[in-house]
Amino acid sequence: MTQTEQDACEKKVPNHPLDGLVLPSGFRFSGAACGIKPSGKQDISLIVTDRPAVAAGTYTQNQIVAAPVVLCRQRTPSQTLRAVITNSGNANACTGDVGDRDAAAMCKQVAEQIGCPEKDVLVMSTGVIGQPLPMDRVQQGIAEAIDKLDATEDSFLASADGILTTDKSRKIACRKIELNGQTYSIAAMAKGAGMIAPNMATMLAVILTDAPIAQEDANNILSNAVQRSFNRVSVDGHTSTNDTCLLLSSGEGESLQGDSLATASEQICDLSIELAKQLVGDGEGASHIISIRVTGAEDTASAEVIAKTVAASPLVKTAITGGDPNWGRIVSAAGYAEAKITPSKTSLKICEQTIYANGSPVEFDAAELSSKMKQAEEVLIELVVGDGNGEAEYWASDLTTDYVRFNSEYTT
Amino acid sequence: MTQTEQDACEKKVPNHPLDGLVLPSGFRFSGAACGIKPSGKQDISLIVTDRPAVAAGTYTQNQIVAAPVVLCRQRTPSQTLRAVITNSGNANACTGDVGDRDAAAMCKQVAEQIGCPEKDVLVMSTGVIGQPLPMDRVQQGIAEAIDKLDATEDSFLASADGILTTDKSRKIACRKIELNGQTYSIAAMAKGAGMIAPNMATMLAVILTDAPIAQEDANNILSNAVQRSFNRVSVDGHTSTNDTCLLLSSGEGESLQGDSLATASEQICDLSIELAKQLVGDGEGASHIISIRVTGAEDTASAEVIAKTVAASPLVKTAITGGDPNWGRIVSAAGYAEAKITPSKTSLKICEQTIYANGSPVEFDAAELSSKMKQAEEVLIELVVGDGNGEAEYWASDLTTDYVRFNSEYTT
Repeated sequence: MTQTEQDACEKKVPNHPLDGLVLPSGFRFSGAACGIKPSGKQDISLIVTDRPAVAAGTYTQNQIVAAPVVLCRQRTPSQTLRAVITNSGNANACTGDVGDRDAAAMCKQVAEQIGCPEKDVLVMSTGVIGQPLPMDRVQQGIAEAIDKLDATEDSFLASADGILTTDKSRKIACRKIELNGQTYSIAAMAKGAGMIAPNMATMLAVILTDAPIAQEDANNILSNAVQRSFNRVSVDGHTSTNDTCLLLSSGEGESLQGDSLATASEQICDLSIELAKQLVGDGEGASHIISIRVTGAEDTASAEVIAKTVAASPLVKTAITGGDPNWGRIVSAAGYAEAKITPSKTSLKICEQTIYANGSPVEFDAAELSSKMKQAEEVLIELVVGDGNGEAEYWASDLTTDYVRFNSEYTT
Repeated sequence: MTQTEQDACEKKVPNHPLDGLVLPSGFRFSGAACGIKPSGKQDISLIVTDRPAVAAGTYTQNQIVAAPVVLCRQRTPSQTLRAVITNSGNANACTGDVGDRDAAAMCKQVAEQIGCPEKDVLVMSTGVIGQPLPMDRVQQGIAEAIDKLDATEDSFLASADGILTTDKSRKIACRKIELNGQTYSIAAMAKGAGMIAPNMATMLAVILTDAPIAQEDANNILSNAVQRSFNRVSVDGHTSTNDTCLLLSSGEGESLQGDSLATASEQICDLSIELAKQLVGDGEGASHIISIRVTGAEDTASAEVIAKTVAASPLVKTAITGGDPNWGRIVSAAGYAEAKITPSKTSLKICEQTIYANGSPVEFDAAELSSKMKQAEEVLIELVVGDGNGEAEYWASDLTTDYVRFNSEYTT
């Protein structure tokens, strides 16, 4: 995408309001610009923990994985994690042995500087694939980032900016939680599922908390949160070679248990959904977030499959782009999902207006609903597919001519 | 789509060359325009056999099926089939009991006129969904079509035109086959997988032959042909409520066996692929046919899944639209297919140029290849994913801003 195209598609995506930004204790942050990106924007992000932290990770399901993912998989889960170093602008994917060595070298440099074993440092990369990292610049960037480490809001924001690529806005979320009379914080940063010139989308996210969470609980909390948030968003259905989501807990003392643990899990899940929706809203060329809520399926897995099938349909996406309350496209997409629906018990609402009930179309004011859909930032599709208990919500971006233009006009 | 938009997207899609049009004996054809389509174009198609014919059918896998599909499923396979009546412009889908009665009434009218039991008549519909058929017009059209039945080329073409909707060209294919010193013919007509305003794509096809084929063999021949042709094309991955493919044999005397049967099966499969590629080439907004040939998979089913996943990726489709030899998008799409690939044994050619070999990118002249891709009507992607014996070919249309425009600017 050229700068002009980027400007042309620029829409108002507000950054996260900084009022109420809360940061968990025990972490320091920094960002740096070392010239991996030709634009000169931030391309290094560093997070360091003051003491050994619990860490859990979930990674891309793609069979082709980038070097940093291979390394992180070996190093998580961990109870002694000290740092996460990220570069943007280059994915270090399909880079062979050199890529493995470069990923390890990035960790080694951080480990030596902060004084910890190499295995306690994780690495993430995102950007172009198939090109070796410019390691001289990367090393300069890491050195600069280490110098700048701080626990301030500004350093957190610099760190959040350092993982972005073609994202039009910074993606962060944070909140305070009260547990057993104690106040803890959760803060998270992510980068977008918008396409990354020239090759593919990468989703990166790091969730940080000072609530004390045991290793095994961190794994469970993260898989549950990812399953209900980042695994339920779709811009174009393309799973990258680099997708990574990490959860780090710097909390000291006795680990959370029982209700407190459940509350922390719920809050982390909720915050992940908040971030996931930011990704979708910033999907390349997106003009609407489509929220697809499926109920009445045989079980949760069925509801997920149906919601995902509807979300992936270009006919549904283009209908939403155009504000067209086209029940035929939505209902028929549910009908070809690989999960059972009961056609005679299938009903549909768009923006809270029933347009299809128990297998038949319903009279409605199409012009009024269309205008509502066009104005909505988030278009809610509520689909009942039977009388089972399975339900799931899924978020997708719509499909616009801008999306196609950006992704077809680029030439490798 | 308004007429202006339709004109704007009009591209040169040549009709099938009429030289060499061969028609099987034992069939009569006609088409009529009865006003189901506001455009006044042909919207009724009738095929009648001179004697009871063998018939096999394959139908949509969508769980929501149109009335005519329900009826055809009950009436195939058959050894006494006499007619296929089709209307375009209205899909008779999601129309409840009225729809069932209308589908049955269409068959009844034909049966009474040509003098056969109702069960020996099949019906297909394609067009808008959720609206009852204008039965007065339909009945008038059927009466007219019966009057016009003939075995000429013109009547065959009129019949082929009567099943089209937003197709930009007629879709027919035919050939002669020599078996045991006898000459037989196969002729087929189809309608497109381009979207049908306002609701969805429908694929209809009828394959006719005068080669004598036993009932059971007809079923096998048709399932094999459909699996390797119509099930391997994708415009936008949307499976309609009406998809139907029929095979009719009017042949008399002893049924084909052994080698003759195998040859007939092969020819019918090959002709189905020819038609399937016509569908893709006429996909809405399509500027290229993408042909994806996967080899080295664990088995045929794996190869199909990988080819389908690559074909469905909007990132791959837009890369082909733009003539971008983007190996990252193709290889990573294969990597997230739900079938095993061996990354270190994965290689890729586009337009016969190797650009990725055994897991690593290869140097090539990107400008030259890009120009070749842009000029090609059909862009061949050859993907080796391991050293297994599984292989499959899949055909898709690319994804253009035209596709998005047509499908987002329409309002129900």
